[in-house]
Amino acid sequence: MNNGIMIVLDGSNGAGKSTVIKAVKEYIESRQLEVVMTREPGGTPIGEKLRNIILSKEHPEMDDLTELMLFGAGRAQHLAEKIYPALESGKVVLSDRFDSATISFQHFARGIDRELVDKINNLALNGFSPTLTIILDLDPRIGLDRVRSRGEGLDRLEDQDLLFLDRARNGYLRQAEEFPNKFYVIDASQSLEKVISEAILAVEQLL
Amino acid sequence: MNNGIMIVLDGSNGAGKSTVIKAVKEYIESRQLEVVMTREPGGTPIGEKLRNIILSKEHPEMDDLTELMLFGAGRAQHLAEKIYPALESGKVVLSDRFDSATISFQHFARGIDRELVDKINNLALNGFSPTLTIILDLDPRIGLDRVRSRGEGLDRLEDQDLLFLDRARNGYLRQAEEFPNKFYVIDASQSLEKVISEAILAVEQLL
Ligand SMILES: Nc1ncnc2c1ncn2[C@@H]1O[C@H](COP(=O)(O)OP(=O)(O)O)[C@@H](O)[C@H]1O
Ligand SMILES: Nc1ncnc2c1ncn2[C@@H]1O[C@H](COP(=O)(O)OP(=O)(O)O)[C@@H](O)[C@H]1O
Ligand SMILES: [Mg+2]
Ligand SMILES: [Mg+2]
Repeated sequence: MNNGIMIVLDGSNGAGKSTVIKAVKEYIESRQLEVVMTREPGGTPIGEKLRNIILSKEHPEMDDLTELMLFGAGRAQHLAEKIYPALESGKVVLSDRFDSATISFQHFARGIDRELVDKINNLALNGFSPTLTIILDLDPRIGLDRVRSRGEGLDRLEDQDLLFLDRARNGYLRQAEEFPNKFYVIDASQSLEKVISEAILAVEQLL
Repeated sequence: MNNGIMIVLDGSNGAGKSTVIKAVKEYIESRQLEVVMTREPGGTPIGEKLRNIILSKEHPEMDDLTELMLFGAGRAQHLAEKIYPALESGKVVLSDRFDSATISFQHFARGIDRELVDKINNLALNGFSPTLTIILDLDPRIGLDRVRSRGEGLDRLEDQDLLFLDRARNGYLRQAEEFPNKFYVIDASQSLEKVISEAILAVEQLL
């Protein structure tokens, strides 16, 4: 579709995605490249409205297929409105979560059929895939402690039992095994400095 | 999936769907059957939120695929939360628009690939289809005159040029030719009394 670079940061809640992505952004900018930062669910005005619906605790009745299609709708909009134009103008796109999260949460953790998850993901992606997905791998117990010590609340998708979160974590590792050229796993229990320097090293090799 | 009866009223804006559906409801209730009235887009709390996003003129940037997936998400929720339970408890479901509208507007009028429209519709429907879709067939010029004389506004999907609305109308007729056992076309330029009595006649044969 194009030759631009899109890098995704993904992993358990509290693993350090939001923190590390900022350091990666500064590094890429120091290389004289323009960066577009974004996130999923969300990333566009329509996508942020869908994010509110998806993550709201008002909607425990949400059907699995509905949820998958809302992720798909948001991703299709995200690509058309923001990601493709940025890549075509030579910018580097950095996203806090992307399709890897849907596969981990909806398939590995929630147990929705992989074929269905892939079908809807693939409809939205239409042949596109991020250049690299960096997984910050962390025991969700540690991640929850980090988040709680900041006093943040949990949304509908995050507020799950530990076995669910373990399955999601495992899902990231499984995807990294499946697609070793597309994934890079970092042990996020290390110091923040160490995690950031490993992430920058991985990005350096792409640029 | 089940043996319940679901009847859809569809057709151009101003053709009389909202008016006729009420008369059909009264007729079915006079037959001692319980009726659940609903509509698309919408029909559930999540679906109504999606309806607002889909029909809002705030979002001219909405991508075709996004729109299709939002219809799909709303329809999946509509089926899971409202339609299947109603049919399973023996109620008759009456819907103001359903999948026929997506095929007419998104494929025939807007020109989105039929295969893509069908794929997303079929994901949401998961093998289900309404028992009967009654098409109120009307020249959109007459429909617009009727609506304007009530002083109603047009939403993002309705506010289109006449050629677009002609293609949508034609799309309903084409679907009725494709699936003659699933569709029943009524000439909606006739008097309201005549339209209602034809609709009731069609419903009578189902009950
Ligand atoms: N490697 C690390 N070691 C210790 N604390 C960390 C580390 N990475 C992130 N944190 C802290 O954990 C909290 C959650 O980090 P954040 O970047 O918001 O995670 P995420 O976006 O993945 O949920 C923040 O307070 C952050 O400073
Ligand atoms: N057959 C008809 N002849 C004349 N006016 C009609 C007829 N059917 C409906 N109307 C009027 O046209 C307007 C639009 O009808 P409505 O049921 O709201 O259409 P829709 O729901 O299909 O947009 C209403 O004022 C209604 O009373
Ligand atoms: Mg974060
Ligand atoms: Mg109406």
